Amino acid sequence: MNPPTKPVSESLSGLVGQGVNAIDTPALVVDLDAMKRNLSRMADFARKHGVRWRPHAKMHKSATLARLQMEAGAVGVCVQKTAEAEAMVAGGIYNVYISNEVVAASKLARVAALAHRVAAEHGQLAIAVDSIEGITRLALAMNDARTLRGGNAVIDVFIEIDVGQGRCGVPPGQPAVTLAHEIRKHPALRLAGLQAYHGKAQHFRSAQERREAIAVVVDDVRFTRKLIEAEGLPVELVTGAGTGTLVCEAASGVFGELQAGSFLFMDADYAQNERDPAQPNFEHALFVKTQVISSHQHHAVCDAGHKSHAIDSGLPKVHALDPGSELEYANGGDEHGILRPAGGNTRVPAIGRLLWLIPGHCDPTVNLHDFMVGVTGGLRQGTIDRIIRVDARGAVT
Amino acid sequence: MNPPTKPVSESLSGLVGQGVNAIDTPALVVDLDAMKRNLSRMADFARKHGVRWRPHAKMHKSATLARLQMEAGAVGVCVQKTAEAEAMVAGGIYNVYISNEVVAASKLARVAALAHRVAAEHGQLAIAVDSIEGITRLALAMNDARTLRGGNAVIDVFIEIDVGQGRCGVPPGQPAVTLAHEIRKHPALRLAGLQAYHGKAQHFRSAQERREAIAVVVDDVRFTRKLIEAEGLPVELVTGAGTGTLVCEAASGVFGELQAGSFLFMDADYAQNERDPAQPNFEHALFVKTQVISSHQHHAVCDAGHKSHAIDSGLPKVHALDPGSELEYANGGDEHGILRPAGGNTRVPAIGRLLWLIPGHCDPTVNLHDFMVGVTGGLRQGTIDRIIRVDARGAVT
Repeated sequence: MNPPTKPVSESLSGLVGQGVNAIDTPALVVDLDAMKRNLSRMADFARKHGVRWRPHAKMHKSATLARLQMEAGAVGVCVQKTAEAEAMVAGGIYNVYISNEVVAASKLARVAALAHRVAAEHGQLAIAVDSIEGITRLALAMNDARTLRGGNAVIDVFIEIDVGQGRCGVPPGQPAVTLAHEIRKHPALRLAGLQAYHGKAQHFRSAQERREAIAVVVDDVRFTRKLIEAEGLPVELVTGAGTGTLVCEAASGVFGELQAGSFLFMDADYAQNERDPAQPNFEHALFVKTQVISSHQHHAVCDAGHKSHAIDSGLPKVHALDPGSELEYANGGDEHGILRPAGGNTRVPAIGRLLWLIPGHCDPTVNLHDFMVGVTGGLRQGTIDRIIRVDARGAVT
Repeated sequence: MNPPTKPVSESLSGLVGQGVNAIDTPALVVDLDAMKRNLSRMADFARKHGVRWRPHAKMHKSATLARLQMEAGAVGVCVQKTAEAEAMVAGGIYNVYISNEVVAASKLARVAALAHRVAAEHGQLAIAVDSIEGITRLALAMNDARTLRGGNAVIDVFIEIDVGQGRCGVPPGQPAVTLAHEIRKHPALRLAGLQAYHGKAQHFRSAQERREAIAVVVDDVRFTRKLIEAEGLPVELVTGAGTGTLVCEAASGVFGELQAGSFLFMDADYAQNERDPAQPNFEHALFVKTQVISSHQHHAVCDAGHKSHAIDSGLPKVHALDPGSELEYANGGDEHGILRPAGGNTRVPAIGRLLWLIPGHCDPTVNLHDFMVGVTGGLRQGTIDRIIRVDARGAVT
């Protein structure tokens, strides 16, 4: 019943077992050793705080990595898009939360079909809502699916409250109570709790600012939960948090589930955050391997531009493998990067030189690539261990 | 011998003949009527100036659109990457210029194989160089391919000079003469002329600034050509120009070929250029269709963020189909856009509302999508005419 994830091409499979030098550039490379250390730090952290973790698969978009995370203790994955949920289910991940609003009838029919599909595998689909209109449309699709398919699949529904992001979500308090009552009207919908994510706070640079922002989030959640419970309705779970603030939500006593995704790979943007002492020391595990194709008196040019890495959160950093080899990356357009010696370094790299970039933002960078090359034994002398398909690449619908 | 381009999936093919409302969001949509008008404006412009045009396929990455351009009079296409060239050749486009430096032995073996492949189809492959090292590596690969395949395929080689971009290319003048002599040493390499592209000048906002920048480019080219010719070597063709400056290169008497690619679709960035009176009046033909998924007192949220469109050259503009419906798009992250009423409009759009975005930069936007939906009869009441596969999506190597 479970369609296998698409196999990688033969030429890619042939890379497995070869050294890192066999990786053509530009390519997305995962340091699997560092990734596994991040995974185990996250599992320890969640265990210590007694919270569930449901990492965001919008980041890695890979059913293989989702499975690794669940083997390490994650309860399932979050996604933002119906097509991402479909890719995860196709890859055998049956506990999926669409932490976003879905309103198109064509998409809700796919959501309802997925709810039935995962129920048959003893899994569970969940979704976020922030309007009566959204709830009504979702209930209609779930009812149609019940009629069409038989079965009595139920979808878990989280009410999204806006806790400072200024994007989706109803204001904390009474509007959420109204939606809670609305959800309870529909037998195919189960009121599962609250979605409360403050995306902007993830990137506040000082740990103190992040703590202050999440203190307000926690107050908003507590207040809203109290109002809903005062009406005799349950709030079983509060879910949210990202890699920047997870220490705050984990210690809050209010959040039962952490959605952080970037911790697995990290990126140049998160590296600029002042580290909270309580935060696990996550390492960079995602790199863009690139090569110098042109070299001049004061600069060189490499073959990775913003078709190889996203620049929405800043340009990539050049990962200096050797002391004194520091380089600064400047924007060279879609297909090029401009490299200039930096720090104590005065040498412009020569034609053919191989370099490793740390992307500014991991999520949209992964989304540019069809596969990631997983390496063990380090970037310098390592071996290609596996090719990881980006199953939900381009899955925007 | 020619492998067909990959077919689009059945569910996509089923869209053809349906109305625009059948397009799920977010999706990349091409207004084919506007695109064809742009194509015909470009063909007229090139004919009038007596120059060849070889549009950059790094923009649309589609062999189907390359073929349409060649039917309208283009001599072939430019690409930036070996993998893009492979995608074009696989789609039956046999006149391809890699207007960029390629130095990896593994890639040059592919380049040499392509040179033989297109020669068998009476086509021609060309490439840019900016170093003796690059020429030596290219010649080695071409010689190896001759030994391996038999045949005497020759690759056209353009010397790239840096005319103000500050990226690849040797300085104008003597360094180009040195490379010209070097190219002539290798029987599988043919000295084809000069590559001279000023990418930054494309986006200088005033027409006067662009004219001044290209006047310097033209002087650099003329000076360099004179030096090369003084040594008895030919400079058959000077190739370059983009959508922002093509009026200047076309009128220069020096450039024989225009590489402009964006004219076909245009984007929000190019729309900010003051139009040169001599410039054809290219229209927007590329849109991201999106839907409102969340609506609040002062803002709404749509389902297209920067996984649906590139933001390296600014955020997309909302295309107001009706007067008084103006909206401003603000960054909502990877999967969301924030919409606020703008101009005289005071209404926040409701859940379910469909909108059209004009991307900030067409090239990297196309690269996010596996296909484009081609529409005739306009965005409001039009019909889906064809699904256009983005053959070279993600082709970064």
